[in-house]
Amino acid sequence: MNYKVPRGTQDILPGQSEKWQKVEEIIRQLCQVYRYQEIRTPIFEQTELFQRSVGDTTDIVQKEMYTFKDRGDRSLTLRPEGTAAVVRSYVEHKMFGQPDQPVKLSYIGPMFRYERQQAGRYRQFVQFGVEAIGSKDPAIDAEVIALAMDVYETAGLKNLKLVINSLGDADVRAAHRDALIKHFEPHIDDFCSDCQNRLEKNPLRILDCKVDRENPLMATAPALTDYLNEESAAYFEAVKKYLDVLGITYVVDPNLVRGLDYYNHTTFEIMSTATDLGAITTLCGGGRYNGLVEQIGGPESPGIGFAMSIERLLLALEAEGRSLDTDNALDMYIVAMDDQAKLKAVELASSFRAKGISTELDYASRKVKAQMKSADRLGAKWVIVLGESELEEQAANVKNMELGSQEKVPFHDLVNYLTKHKVQ
Amino acid sequence: MNYKVPRGTQDILPGQSEKWQKVEEIIRQLCQVYRYQEIRTPIFEQTELFQRSVGDTTDIVQKEMYTFKDRGDRSLTLRPEGTAAVVRSYVEHKMFGQPDQPVKLSYIGPMFRYERQQAGRYRQFVQFGVEAIGSKDPAIDAEVIALAMDVYETAGLKNLKLVINSLGDADVRAAHRDALIKHFEPHIDDFCSDCQNRLEKNPLRILDCKVDRENPLMATAPALTDYLNEESAAYFEAVKKYLDVLGITYVVDPNLVRGLDYYNHTTFEIMSTATDLGAITTLCGGGRYNGLVEQIGGPESPGIGFAMSIERLLLALEAEGRSLDTDNALDMYIVAMDDQAKLKAVELASSFRAKGISTELDYASRKVKAQMKSADRLGAKWVIVLGESELEEQAANVKNMELGSQEKVPFHDLVNYLTKHKVQ
Repeated sequence: MNYKVPRGTQDILPGQSEKWQKVEEIIRQLCQVYRYQEIRTPIFEQTELFQRSVGDTTDIVQKEMYTFKDRGDRSLTLRPEGTAAVVRSYVEHKMFGQPDQPVKLSYIGPMFRYERQQAGRYRQFVQFGVEAIGSKDPAIDAEVIALAMDVYETAGLKNLKLVINSLGDADVRAAHRDALIKHFEPHIDDFCSDCQNRLEKNPLRILDCKVDRENPLMATAPALTDYLNEESAAYFEAVKKYLDVLGITYVVDPNLVRGLDYYNHTTFEIMSTATDLGAITTLCGGGRYNGLVEQIGGPESPGIGFAMSIERLLLALEAEGRSLDTDNALDMYIVAMDDQAKLKAVELASSFRAKGISTELDYASRKVKAQMKSADRLGAKWVIVLGESELEEQAANVKNMELGSQEKVPFHDLVNYLTKHKVQ
Repeated sequence: MNYKVPRGTQDILPGQSEKWQKVEEIIRQLCQVYRYQEIRTPIFEQTELFQRSVGDTTDIVQKEMYTFKDRGDRSLTLRPEGTAAVVRSYVEHKMFGQPDQPVKLSYIGPMFRYERQQAGRYRQFVQFGVEAIGSKDPAIDAEVIALAMDVYETAGLKNLKLVINSLGDADVRAAHRDALIKHFEPHIDDFCSDCQNRLEKNPLRILDCKVDRENPLMATAPALTDYLNEESAAYFEAVKKYLDVLGITYVVDPNLVRGLDYYNHTTFEIMSTATDLGAITTLCGGGRYNGLVEQIGGPESPGIGFAMSIERLLLALEAEGRSLDTDNALDMYIVAMDDQAKLKAVELASSFRAKGISTELDYASRKVKAQMKSADRLGAKWVIVLGESELEEQAANVKNMELGSQEKVPFHDLVNYLTKHKVQ
């Protein structure tokens, strides 16, 4: 029987995994300086949490969730996104009672959506995201956007485009909703059945329909921006002012609505403009979600956040031809000529590793020549060969494979010697 | 509506998550020096993979798996352990063809078992594990054990006990199996129905039955060790010799069988002897699984590995009263007195963060006094207060909260000043 990785998922193998580790390191360091502390919620949640927060009429909830019953007959769903669970945790653990608001949280981990297969789209994918909950200060909107940009820039991306928009508050959305219905209703028979359903329930969702994308009515649909009231407009202006202060360039796109129901006020996307990236150019999406905390059972606590796919970040780096600076060098390979030498090799390897010197040896009873080839393939910086005479002398020649030089060092001095020469 | 974290799972919140990060850092660093490169397999696999490898008659497969159908009617299971998927990946990606065997892999991530709730047991828990596949050198068994011990010791645990055993090869297990059947058969009616089923299918599993643990026949059951043939005994001796060379203390326990079918030859557990830990003392389990790769469709490739629960590692640290050295200090809090000062605060925060200086500011329009309190609570090393006069002078007093001292520094020199004083 042959087993394969489940359809739409992938294994991340050595060679790739170092890149993931590097990205995680960048993220962890930036979250530390921006003060977004990590939270880890479970891989699955009660199904209803996502239905309520992401929205019953969204594609995610209607078509893309991995939902199942556990052995206690509870309906669980593999999380399709990160915000709902973080907000659930904020409410459950009463973080709204902490003296310092907003509570600034970050998360990174796998998300699950049963989507059609496509390059750069996986059914399991990893999202890094942050949430700042408990503040409606436009400066925090700008900070969240700045952090997302900083991750990409620190990773080395150059071809970035930030697009922002405002969806306004509840009043704005109600007015816009009426306008949308008026706009689409006379021609709704030309649209897919999903859109026909959306017309009454949630006409905004029509705008991100994948089927009817090309319908000319899409381009002429009333823009939310035209319905912004004074307060919403002022808020949006303030966000833009802070972005200016931060030196962050942006484009306002009135058609930017996100595929989740909970957004209002500021929404944004960061896209890659690298020409080699293919169809999917959005790297990161986010926005404000005042009202979501109440919906999930907490007190009024306005929030904002974003989520970015690590897979797409890596694809974008590749499209720009940039490589991450990963460090996976092998310091030492110990060649053992016989069983006695092997015992010594094991002992020395342990003493080297204890000092942070990465060490490899042969576990396949190969001849010296084959072991040397292995050291070469693995790019070892140093090699020592242990045989009868080395055991007798209690010393070995340390070969520096880069310089082609060598030096005889007593066993008891090897750790010191390597430690000293490693930092140079 | 109030939502709760699913039963048997937990949120890891700020305050705890830094400890997880620290453990991951230790693990990543040790895997680097021992050369176990990271592999990431999906959260779920085809159900059959676990049935075949973990074993049809095990508790895990019979009672504890989260199994569900996806929208394409495929039976998927949230991984209950890590080895099966790593071996699946080794075979699928033909890693057996790589010139350097064994292939040494590590993984860390959530696993899922629907178990009864109990302190220290979660239905979602995180395992770190390694697999060395493609070698039957007893030195690699010792290396794998050494790495596990090293993780615990580097994390700070002192009260550790390593228990080892050999399950021998296929011949040994067949002879032992016959002896077990002979031993239990006359009294099998006194055992639970699971054990009655196990008698013919897999009598070894009787020994780790949780229900019949106290039955006196358990203690008198024939030990595998008594059935070891010459080759298996020699292998076990060699493993012990390497452990001696590495200075690793162990106890041989002939009753150590692990709850998964694929093990043979070397098996081991690492327990905590800390008195405050409660009922669950096993921190780590592992063993050799020659034959598993063939079972999953690959060529003969003997393997060995272990898995450890991070939750239990943290509980053991707590039980020993040891704390991990986490670094989550706040460097700078910027107090802003008005809207103009706030713009400057945002700008300065950005310039500090760009140099790795962690910075926080107020996003709740609080008065100066409340902002100062916040800086205190967060343990800020420095504070600057920005108001009209600072903007006019283009300089601020940098207060060192530890020393109680302060120094006036021009805005344009702040980054340099802080960078210079941070390293001291």
